[in-house]
Amino acid sequence: GLGGCVLTLMEYGFVDFIISTGANLYHDMHHALAMSLHRGDFRTDDTQLQEEGVIRIYDILFEDKVLLDTDAFVREALKSLPNHPISTSELHHHLGTQLLQAGVKPEYSVLAQAAAWNVPIYTSSPGDSSIGMNVARNALDGSLLTLDPLADVNETTAIVHHATRNGVIILGGGSPKNFYLQTQPQLWEVLGIQKGGHDYFIQITADAPHWGGLSGATPSEAVSWGKIKPEQLRDTVVVYGDSTIALPLLTAYTVSKAQPRPRKELFLQRKALLKELHSAYETGKLSRP
Amino acid sequence: GLGGCVLTLMEYGFVDFIISTGANLYHDMHHALAMSLHRGDFRTDDTQLQEEGVIRIYDILFEDKVLLDTDAFVREALKSLPNHPISTSELHHHLGTQLLQAGVKPEYSVLAQAAAWNVPIYTSSPGDSSIGMNVARNALDGSLLTLDPLADVNETTAIVHHATRNGVIILGGGSPKNFYLQTQPQLWEVLGIQKGGHDYFIQITADAPHWGGLSGATPSEAVSWGKIKPEQLRDTVVVYGDSTIALPLLTAYTVSKAQPRPRKELFLQRKALLKELHSAYETGKLSRP
Amino acid sequence: GLGGCVLTLMEYGFVDFIISTGANLYHDMHHALAMSLHRGDFRTDDTQLQEEGVIRIYDILFEDKVLLDTDAFVREALKSLPNHPISTSELHHHLGTQLLQAGVKPEYSVLAQAAAWNVPIYTSSPGDSSIGMNVARNALDGSLLTLDPLADVNETTAIVHHATRNGVIILGGGSPKNFYLQTQPQLWEVLGIQKGGHDYFIQITADAPHWGGLSGATPSEAVSWGKIKPEQLRDTVVVYGDSTIALPLLTAYTVSKAQPRPRKELFLQRKALLKELHSAYETGKLSRP
Amino acid sequence: GLGGCVLTLMEYGFVDFIISTGANLYHDMHHALAMSLHRGDFRTDDTQLQEEGVIRIYDILFEDKVLLDTDAFVREALKSLPNHPISTSELHHHLGTQLLQAGVKPEYSVLAQAAAWNVPIYTSSPGDSSIGMNVARNALDGSLLTLDPLADVNETTAIVHHATRNGVIILGGGSPKNFYLQTQPQLWEVLGIQKGGHDYFIQITADAPHWGGLSGATPSEAVSWGKIKPEQLRDTVVVYGDSTIALPLLTAYTVSKAQPRPRKELFLQRKALLKELHSAYETGKLSRP
Repeated sequence: GLGGCVLTLMEYGFVDFIISTGANLYHDMHHALAMSLHRGDFRTDDTQLQEEGVIRIYDILFEDKVLLDTDAFVREALKSLPNHPISTSELHHHLGTQLLQAGVKPEYSVLAQAAAWNVPIYTSSPGDSSIGMNVARNALDGSLLTLDPLADVNETTAIVHHATRNGVIILGGGSPKNFYLQTQPQLWEVLGIQKGGHDYFIQITADAPHWGGLSGATPSEAVSWGKIKPEQLRDTVVVYGDSTIALPLLTAYTVSKAQPRPRKELFLQRKALLKELHSAYETGKLSRP
Repeated sequence: GLGGCVLTLMEYGFVDFIISTGANLYHDMHHALAMSLHRGDFRTDDTQLQEEGVIRIYDILFEDKVLLDTDAFVREALKSLPNHPISTSELHHHLGTQLLQAGVKPEYSVLAQAAAWNVPIYTSSPGDSSIGMNVARNALDGSLLTLDPLADVNETTAIVHHATRNGVIILGGGSPKNFYLQTQPQLWEVLGIQKGGHDYFIQITADAPHWGGLSGATPSEAVSWGKIKPEQLRDTVVVYGDSTIALPLLTAYTVSKAQPRPRKELFLQRKALLKELHSAYETGKLSRP
Repeated sequence: GLGGCVLTLMEYGFVDFIISTGANLYHDMHHALAMSLHRGDFRTDDTQLQEEGVIRIYDILFEDKVLLDTDAFVREALKSLPNHPISTSELHHHLGTQLLQAGVKPEYSVLAQAAAWNVPIYTSSPGDSSIGMNVARNALDGSLLTLDPLADVNETTAIVHHATRNGVIILGGGSPKNFYLQTQPQLWEVLGIQKGGHDYFIQITADAPHWGGLSGATPSEAVSWGKIKPEQLRDTVVVYGDSTIALPLLTAYTVSKAQPRPRKELFLQRKALLKELHSAYETGKLSRP
Repeated sequence: GLGGCVLTLMEYGFVDFIISTGANLYHDMHHALAMSLHRGDFRTDDTQLQEEGVIRIYDILFEDKVLLDTDAFVREALKSLPNHPISTSELHHHLGTQLLQAGVKPEYSVLAQAAAWNVPIYTSSPGDSSIGMNVARNALDGSLLTLDPLADVNETTAIVHHATRNGVIILGGGSPKNFYLQTQPQLWEVLGIQKGGHDYFIQITADAPHWGGLSGATPSEAVSWGKIKPEQLRDTVVVYGDSTIALPLLTAYTVSKAQPRPRKELFLQRKALLKELHSAYETGKLSRP
């Protein structure tokens, strides 16, 4: 996995916030809880695995008990959350905090260290993954705790709005890619605030532009949407290939060439940033209602 | 686009429910509102497009006014929604109903016809797309309306739980793929209800298994997760290629070979199905708390 | 396989000549010889297959006896070929003629029907495949028969030189793709004859431009080489996907929309065309030595 | 380009022989001849490039004069070759030798250094590339010099037959991939000599197994053909991605971890190896004619 790279980049202050699928975060918890995952062969007989209670993620194998125990941890953690809608950054910070307290090896967990370092983590698909599935069970049990995707849209937009320069490293594509990029159209198209687009764009992907989808879409296409600044287009980079090869290279290069930076601890500043965004939005309304 | 195929398959009663990205649904609205989209060349100069206010999605071009006017339609529609969390099926049904009333050409819109035929439409990433972005602005304006991903998890699981046989046609991959497949682990892993996995699985994708991600993961891998029934594995199909080639072929074949079926109108049955799921969950708790 | 499509397109006079890998032609012979090939599963255990003498080509399975018997047929056919270098069009025409005489089902064989209809077939890699391997054994036995790649370069260039308009349908990419396209640089760059590039270009490929190789290279890149006429670039087409889906669609469309054309029988005209090319080359030498 | 990696690996004695496309070797000559190639942008307007006489290979740009001058060098070199069929290893060794004598920077050329170190270089498609195109012009001029693909089949098979262990690093796929792998079936299937398959197999490719072609075919499929030893299958490796990322990593790892080996200078041993192969073939004939 790429957790080690992300941990290092966060530690050095090179990661201000993260947008992830829920599955990446759910399986990250196994490491903090010191559960056993095994490297296997992707050609293993899956019917036999299923009979023996073994789960496969490509070439990673583990017992289904790993799922059940992680689920139990998540549900226990939910008990200390409020009974109303929250952002996914709050959910993930809370899970990370619980891992720091209860986890055997929180130092191997992105969720735990992000909580320690106040790096907010969002997911663009909050119901999709075993984390969301357990919060859904919680709802069946009568809780009014839910995850508020709009809070996530507004928080990420507020972060981007506040920054002088914005940029991203995209691993893969999919919904998290757009969730970051859309913060710029959220400003100009929806809220009437001019910002001009992101400044930096590095994508590592196995997708291709010719399928026409967003995952493989070029930074150039993003310029037409006001997602990327036109004058920065020459410096955008798309690496075609596997993140598990490219990110370790980038990480090794970065930590050997660049000085660590103070961490921004944006998780603690969400309210102030939202207030700023709100104020700019109200001002913009005067000129474009 | 593939809207025509989906419309035909819904009309014939071959689509019980849909899980989509928000972007597909947002851009579907342009058709109902008779806005102008143009086929162009994917090599058009995006900096020039941006200067002239033209948006590009691969080889589709349209004025940014299309976005602004669709946004205005969405925000107007939000006014008649309740001031609390709702499922995305409710949001999409409401937007579809508004399109039926106000749209110039609702017959070209999946959202509109799905509302007419009571086909529920979910999205696994409710904040990701201009639909979510406008609901987020609504929240900045003080509304308590939000989208509840847990309601979506529970509704989709309830539909799958109720059915005698379950199956899916997956176009692409990403978050919507898992959001459907996870309904089976939601039953056995999280809610303690044995179901055994889905019965049918057809995926049309440009992704590949060897990258290790969920989009390209094989139906065989899904067997290890209890997402697909092992005895059905031989009948699962993965078509490697472009959905815009494969789905029209499948649609033409289907409507020429199979009789139409009565539409299930699952949108109207969500409460009853949730009640059934809840009851099975409570029963299951007795044996596995 | 795609043999049926190629047979139909040849029959209708839509194929003037073919450039193929040797493997496609070698395995085509099994059909003429009525040997048994079986559709299987690409996940079959290959070590077990090898122990049982079964050969696998993705999801096609057959006994190794199929190879040995086809090899014997090829070697028998070589006995009636001359003892000096020949073009691969001569080799393939000879094999096709032998299949017409000895084959049980020559009507299912591209090699046989191409011989019947005098469609010349070239390969850009004459030693690569079991055909070349058996000719190599023949050489070990002391024969001076060999395959002359330069004869192929000159014959294909002569065909293109003679035509008023040139075009190609490329299935896949690789060495055969360039072997066709290079006929234009052979004219202007090497022989000093101006022609201006090919007129039509349709490629069906699973490759992508961003890897930088020739297989995935765009028709636009080919324009810079003088391989494609710049003014024809707008009409070039690249279909990303599987030839086994796209070619049957193209074939069905073609035979239902277009009238058959008289076959050109270029195999019989090779000498005349070479003479024409030679003459143009000598003329060109006067202006550019 | 990857020339630097190949030069280093040859220097350290890690490369016994090479199978390449002609294009790689042709463009390698520009370096020895100190011609100017430029890194550009793959989105450059190709019609404009063509008008200005600039050739593009993805993001490499150079004047068409580079082609014409390299062609002239090739044709001059052909004058000192014999007037009959030769193997491509002889052609490439001769070109390399001429580059060593005439080249300004032969130390940057794989062809030149391979000649210096007696590493034989083969191509599976001798007529495909500007090298073959110029030899074809030579034939139009009346020369009987041609390239003998069967000599290449027999020489490569002889090298593999002699070795105690055989293995390959495959960059990409295509015709060169099979040309190496087929040496094993050439032994057992065509010549009746048992060897058991190759021992090592590392492929770096952007292709995928599911298209069914040879480029993306797995080492497992090769086991069914007797191309790879079944007991070595667990150690075969396929890296999905770009050779320009993976090979420098492999090269750096190799030269930092492994001791240089004496170079085998197989180019000088071809006759002896062919004699050995011939003798084994004659012996095998006694048991299987």
